[in-house]
Amino acid sequence: MNKELLIDAGLRLSRLRMYPYFDICHYLITSTMVRDDILLHQTTTPNFSRRHPLSCWLSSMLLCFAGSIMSNFLLGESPIKDFQQHQHLLLASICWYLVFYSPFDLIYKLLKFMPIKLFVGIMKEIQRTKKIYDGVHHTMHIYPDAYIIIVIIGTVKGCAGSVMASVDRFVRGVWLPNQHEFLYPTFATKACMISAIIFTMEHYSLIKFDRELIYLCVASAFIYVKIISVFFKQYD
Amino acid sequence: MNKELLIDAGLRLSRLRMYPYFDICHYLITSTMVRDDILLHQTTTPNFSRRHPLSCWLSSMLLCFAGSIMSNFLLGESPIKDFQQHQHLLLASICWYLVFYSPFDLIYKLLKFMPIKLFVGIMKEIQRTKKIYDGVHHTMHIYPDAYIIIVIIGTVKGCAGSVMASVDRFVRGVWLPNQHEFLYPTFATKACMISAIIFTMEHYSLIKFDRELIYLCVASAFIYVKIISVFFKQYD
Amino acid sequence: MNKELLIDAGLRLSRLRMYPYFDICHYLITSTMVRDDILLHQTTTPNFSRRHPLSCWLSSMLLCFAGSIMSNFLLGESPIKDFQQHQHLLLASICWYLVFYSPFDLIYKLLKFMPIKLFVGIMKEIQRTKKIYDGVHHTMHIYPDAYIIIVIIGTVKGCAGSVMASVDRFVRGVWLPNQHEFLYPTFATKACMISAIIFTMEHYSLIKFDRELIYLCVASAFIYVKIISVFFKQYD
Ligand SMILES: [Mg+2]
Ligand SMILES: [Mg+2]
Ligand SMILES: [Mg+2]
Repeated sequence: MNKELLIDAGLRLSRLRMYPYFDICHYLITSTMVRDDILLHQTTTPNFSRRHPLSCWLSSMLLCFAGSIMSNFLLGESPIKDFQQHQHLLLASICWYLVFYSPFDLIYKLLKFMPIKLFVGIMKEIQRTKKIYDGVHHTMHIYPDAYIIIVIIGTVKGCAGSVMASVDRFVRGVWLPNQHEFLYPTFATKACMISAIIFTMEHYSLIKFDRELIYLCVASAFIYVKIISVFFKQYD
Repeated sequence: MNKELLIDAGLRLSRLRMYPYFDICHYLITSTMVRDDILLHQTTTPNFSRRHPLSCWLSSMLLCFAGSIMSNFLLGESPIKDFQQHQHLLLASICWYLVFYSPFDLIYKLLKFMPIKLFVGIMKEIQRTKKIYDGVHHTMHIYPDAYIIIVIIGTVKGCAGSVMASVDRFVRGVWLPNQHEFLYPTFATKACMISAIIFTMEHYSLIKFDRELIYLCVASAFIYVKIISVFFKQYD
Repeated sequence: MNKELLIDAGLRLSRLRMYPYFDICHYLITSTMVRDDILLHQTTTPNFSRRHPLSCWLSSMLLCFAGSIMSNFLLGESPIKDFQQHQHLLLASICWYLVFYSPFDLIYKLLKFMPIKLFVGIMKEIQRTKKIYDGVHHTMHIYPDAYIIIVIIGTVKGCAGSVMASVDRFVRGVWLPNQHEFLYPTFATKACMISAIIFTMEHYSLIKFDRELIYLCVASAFIYVKIISVFFKQYD
């Protein structure tokens, strides 16, 4: 009985529509990350976001759509293919605008307020799980049995942001070649990779377990780590 | 009557064959830009073009075909696809050779001589308009209704050179991460973007105006700005 | 009679299966090159390979599969397409592991021991010839008569490693923008280009000579240069 309930929860979770609410949370968090990175690395340029709006916007968009851009690139597709739907870019641009230029800096301050930060963070983790899951299954249709490619695309869908960070900083005129993801992989990157491997193994029946339960477990693990990291700033 | 004449002029302009004369002007200007950039940023390596001919040639070619390379890349095609026609690369290589190694530095000096500079510059602007127009219409065939992609490709066709400048400098061993197009967008980049938007809007009948006249207007605007900038060195 | 023998030798050479023995030699040499490059450029990070295993592994894999990644990218395919066959990546990873972490550093020391170095080097040169040959003929099927693209892909198949070196170093946190292949092309790069041109010309009957003999000549030239360079450390 209890298990059926959990399976039902997993099924609902895996069928949630990401657009617009979950995507908004992702865009808000990503823009906040860009803003924090500017504060950290671009102290010599006060008012960077007002002086270089194009660079700031492009940098945020690159990070917001990093998963889509990088996975399309790695699959040999047009990297800007997903911009066929305008609403995503529009939504991301609005989120970016609100984070950087909202009156009284309201949105940014709200996003730093603990309960909201936690809520938005959890939403983002749910979206991340979905992206990894979709990435894995999308790649399976193109390259069946190519486990390596499937795991790479799944991982990239989940944590392209951290891989893209170097390009992103370059767009903002910051170049830190000895401070990137591959040298110091974050916990998120490793977790994305493990999740992609789990989803792949499940598909090939190497893990004999309900797909919905696995989905629920992975999502819960991401959320759990998020909560821990918001409260104790330990991981990532 | 007058309007018909203008429409006729616009039609002729939009049907001009770019190869070889307009392309030659583009290649000559681009090679000159590379040479000036070497003079500006590579003062520590005297005689750079003689010491590193491969790097110099590759750098010039990357800039000459930046529009083609970048738009093909962004559309998920082979970036070197347009080299199927050898004559373009051959022509560009000859222009590069003439600019860098002509006897008595004749070609370079001629290209710095005002009337010739102006003429070649105007030719290049006509070619630029055509490239943006073709880029917009080519992309429409692949991704109809994907306005964002259409405008991106149109813009890139017109001003890829300025976006490619960082890669181009890297090939020459120069790395200036805080001095690129996205931080300080040139007037040309903005103008290319506006032109791409105008061409796109016209196609979807959001601007109700003769296509030929719009083409003529855009080309005239580019030429006007070129003339101003040659005389007063104000823009770009 | 003698000629027939040579033709037969050339035919056999061109039909040799590269997997696994020749590939192993390529992976071993490439991993050794990465290790030497770390010793040369990353003196500030002692024990780099143990502190940053992901970066070290990724860097080695990028170099091992540079030819495949770059040629797929230049042809507009998925850059990771060749990972559909897992055994190559697996084999390369094992070679990488052995070179970096073998007990008593045995494998690395053996690879530095002259006769073994020579043998492995010759195997790699045979593999290189095959790669250039296959690259040229593969591209001919996709773009017939596009000589430039054919020669580019052939060259890249043979010496992508040296072009990729900048990306590879970046992954390891090293950034030397004024020390790359295009500024100081190695002998190997030039030789690869000449070989690609010879193979292309032979195909279009511009060189009237037995294909097998040409193959044998190119392979011999590569091996000869390798032997010279191992003994006298003159080229490359
Ligand atoms: Mg993303
Ligand atoms: Mg161009
Ligand atoms: Mg290789």
